[in-house]
Amino acid sequence: MSDFSVPPGPGLVHRPTLTPPSLQDNSADGDRLCSALRRDLGVEQIHVSLALRRRLPALLRDAAYAVRCVIFQEKSCAVLVHAAAADAHEGLYGLAVDLGTTRVVLRLVDLENRTVLAEDGFDNPQVEIGPDVLARIHHTDQPGGLARLQRLIVDGLNRNAAALARACGVDAQDIHLVTVAGNTAMSHLLAGLPSGWIIREPYIPAANRFGLMPAAELGLALAPLAQVLIFPNVGSYFGGDLIAGILHSGLHRREETAILVDVGTNAEVVVGNREWLMACAGAAGPALEGGMSRMGTTAGPGVIDRVRIDPRTRHIDIHTIEDLPPRGICGSGVIDLAAQLFLAGMIDIRGKLRPDICGPRLFLRDGLAHLIIVPGEASAGGQPLCISQADLDSLIRSKAAMYTILETITATVGLALDSLPAFWVAGTFGQFIDPVSAITIGMLPDLPLSRFATLGNTSLGGATLALVCRSAPAEIDQIRDAVTYLELNVNQEFMNRFSAAKFIPHTDPDRFPSVPIP
Amino acid sequence: MSDFSVPPGPGLVHRPTLTPPSLQDNSADGDRLCSALRRDLGVEQIHVSLALRRRLPALLRDAAYAVRCVIFQEKSCAVLVHAAAADAHEGLYGLAVDLGTTRVVLRLVDLENRTVLAEDGFDNPQVEIGPDVLARIHHTDQPGGLARLQRLIVDGLNRNAAALARACGVDAQDIHLVTVAGNTAMSHLLAGLPSGWIIREPYIPAANRFGLMPAAELGLALAPLAQVLIFPNVGSYFGGDLIAGILHSGLHRREETAILVDVGTNAEVVVGNREWLMACAGAAGPALEGGMSRMGTTAGPGVIDRVRIDPRTRHIDIHTIEDLPPRGICGSGVIDLAAQLFLAGMIDIRGKLRPDICGPRLFLRDGLAHLIIVPGEASAGGQPLCISQADLDSLIRSKAAMYTILETITATVGLALDSLPAFWVAGTFGQFIDPVSAITIGMLPDLPLSRFATLGNTSLGGATLALVCRSAPAEIDQIRDAVTYLELNVNQEFMNRFSAAKFIPHTDPDRFPSVPIP
Repeated sequence: MSDFSVPPGPGLVHRPTLTPPSLQDNSADGDRLCSALRRDLGVEQIHVSLALRRRLPALLRDAAYAVRCVIFQEKSCAVLVHAAAADAHEGLYGLAVDLGTTRVVLRLVDLENRTVLAEDGFDNPQVEIGPDVLARIHHTDQPGGLARLQRLIVDGLNRNAAALARACGVDAQDIHLVTVAGNTAMSHLLAGLPSGWIIREPYIPAANRFGLMPAAELGLALAPLAQVLIFPNVGSYFGGDLIAGILHSGLHRREETAILVDVGTNAEVVVGNREWLMACAGAAGPALEGGMSRMGTTAGPGVIDRVRIDPRTRHIDIHTIEDLPPRGICGSGVIDLAAQLFLAGMIDIRGKLRPDICGPRLFLRDGLAHLIIVPGEASAGGQPLCISQADLDSLIRSKAAMYTILETITATVGLALDSLPAFWVAGTFGQFIDPVSAITIGMLPDLPLSRFATLGNTSLGGATLALVCRSAPAEIDQIRDAVTYLELNVNQEFMNRFSAAKFIPHTDPDRFPSVPIP
Repeated sequence: MSDFSVPPGPGLVHRPTLTPPSLQDNSADGDRLCSALRRDLGVEQIHVSLALRRRLPALLRDAAYAVRCVIFQEKSCAVLVHAAAADAHEGLYGLAVDLGTTRVVLRLVDLENRTVLAEDGFDNPQVEIGPDVLARIHHTDQPGGLARLQRLIVDGLNRNAAALARACGVDAQDIHLVTVAGNTAMSHLLAGLPSGWIIREPYIPAANRFGLMPAAELGLALAPLAQVLIFPNVGSYFGGDLIAGILHSGLHRREETAILVDVGTNAEVVVGNREWLMACAGAAGPALEGGMSRMGTTAGPGVIDRVRIDPRTRHIDIHTIEDLPPRGICGSGVIDLAAQLFLAGMIDIRGKLRPDICGPRLFLRDGLAHLIIVPGEASAGGQPLCISQADLDSLIRSKAAMYTILETITATVGLALDSLPAFWVAGTFGQFIDPVSAITIGMLPDLPLSRFATLGNTSLGGATLALVCRSAPAEIDQIRDAVTYLELNVNQEFMNRFSAAKFIPHTDPDRFPSVPIP
């Protein structure tokens, strides 16, 4: 939450200047308000729902024509989402949603003060149908399947939004706008849109742009007239979560080129500036199967996130989240571990464990080499924590895939990887990763550390921005239209790059001058 | 119905040219359709309801991407109301509604062929609450009053629309768009908008522009996603019925100035051309009380609509609607009668019955002179049909009010009444009125007969146009913005004009050269 700062420009709550009616100025209540808003916002049309129109005459009179309006502005049209008396105690709130396949994160936002009040997350309840996008979409082929999935996520959102609001002393009925950043499939399942064609050639979503939709039509129990903005997607494999990420990063506003890498279930990459944006997603076929997502367990208390190995003694020094006894290792821990193992000479450039160096910590189980990281007596469960050769092989494939994707997309736009002025890493993964270790294993390019920045949960950040910046919908549209999606063809060139990247740091060590060869 | 001809320009049903998706062109279904529509219609945004978005993927595939779209276009935004396969048998229909205080008239329109299929009317069921606008609006002050009035008219519309559709072999579920032309109060009561402020100083409606609203939200049982356009009003006293009337008349498209007079419950007058429109309504205070509405009974079978009096024999020759035995006299009949009584010398220039000329047909009842028009043996009810001095006094006041309004509005825009190039009379009244008689009594100005035209039910005509012309919403908006509403102040000048007009044809006979002085 601390990484959120309000950008310049107007917010979503506007106080129009209204002159009370008179015999000389007897315009209707609704039109009086709309024409003031049209003038103030510089738009051609204001949409007001019938239900809100019905409430306006009493509201305007009770408020002596001094009101606060929640506005959603898109191009030359704006929607009047809600109106309240200017001096009422009634708060005006919004809900930003990072709608992940695995995890959903919510933020409660004060629309008027443009502040984040609280944040919380919950596991996507659709997991009970299937762990991944594919399983869930297949479930929509069954009768009632789509409705069931839609109901699951809506119930989850209702439950958790209510709890989050309650914790802040806010009435969920005062939440007027919801912004949702999710991948294309999750967005479709929330909207209850047919999703089956997303995963079947030629991979056609039902919608790229969703438009504003009434929360009540989705089943969301918020303000009766609340509206939902689902971030648009570029295609089946480039979702609204990434559009939100770009919005949050500001990539589309910079003169200088930057690259934004989001590592979640997939690895997604966008490179560009305010002139152009080129994007690709890591679902690059069977070569990358098991890709970025299989590295270690989810970060949490007691999970190893930092590893140092003394190159002389080969003593393994670990750090766990909240300093609790270790119970597992997360993605950033695995990258740290691999880098340290490499620097200590305990794995070779192919990532293979070296029995001669590892010594008694190495043992065989089911014919597979395992290295004890934490002995049983020091671990939370009393069992030793190990890394296997299979884990390391998987990491090598993942890091090679990542590097190959980065190499391919920058080559496509005619840039050298090492010339990138800014390299941003998003996602929970990016928050914890140590760039030095990622460079050491050849996962990230060997740039000066000052060029790296971690952006945190950019999807949530983008969803939040859309609740506090009136210009966000226009920017979202601009981003969506600017993005060129690069289909990552697993052709010979890609496979050659991939093979070359399956070494630590690379078959071409000149690319990684900062990495010492042990 | 025969007076309806389709104007040039596109209708509301559009067949976009869609390319089926491919790996090379994998835009989403909704976006594919919307971008084709944006291109074809030249608009910035297309609104599609969530429910329709959910149906698009299956529809587009079933139709092999050849579809018909029902479009409602307003400025740079359009609403996709419905989409159907291009080759399906499914018809696409609309319902035009003339929402009168007393009578409601419906037309079933084929949106695709742009033809009127049938027309029917029914009495406004809100009459059971109160006969006029005032009584009904007062009823909305009671708890549940507004909802009750709204329900009454919606039920009436549902019942009669279903019957009309059934008579044409049409399923009411295939009616996708409803256009409603009513006065400001009737429009509010249909929309369920608070109406109490319409009749209280400073006379502020809840809405001037209603925007498109979902038929289901009003309770209309048509297509599930049907939309309703209620014509906008200019103010409390200048309603959508008149905007529709102007649209139908084409006043706003002409280079030459014309005047449009609609005589219904009130007398409403618009004068103008494509550059400007000046309007006023006949609710001009107590001087006109009893105004245009109290003349005779409603036209119907057996009602006298034409009267001729032989100036020598003073024999009264009557014509009744459908040639049935006479049972009453309607507005046009009263005007004919008064003109003929005047020309036969049976009333004087003040409209007073002359006992010396009327002879034995004249008798006194309750101290008031009555003239037998039809003797008891010739009437439908066996009782003589009479006209009293009070009826004639009322007619004189009405015709004087009409003339004064015409004189005032033309004077305001700097025109002489006798210089008007075109004089159009709308409404049921206008359909039956004999201009010669109306000129004779000094109700209408003494223009050459060729300048007069009767336009019939212009409100219904305008509502129909909005179902067959894609440009109608833009024109409606243009009309609404162009209209300057002239508040008829009952000041000394107005009263002087009114007093001068309370003679037959006028205190200044030079204004009526065609009227012979008997």
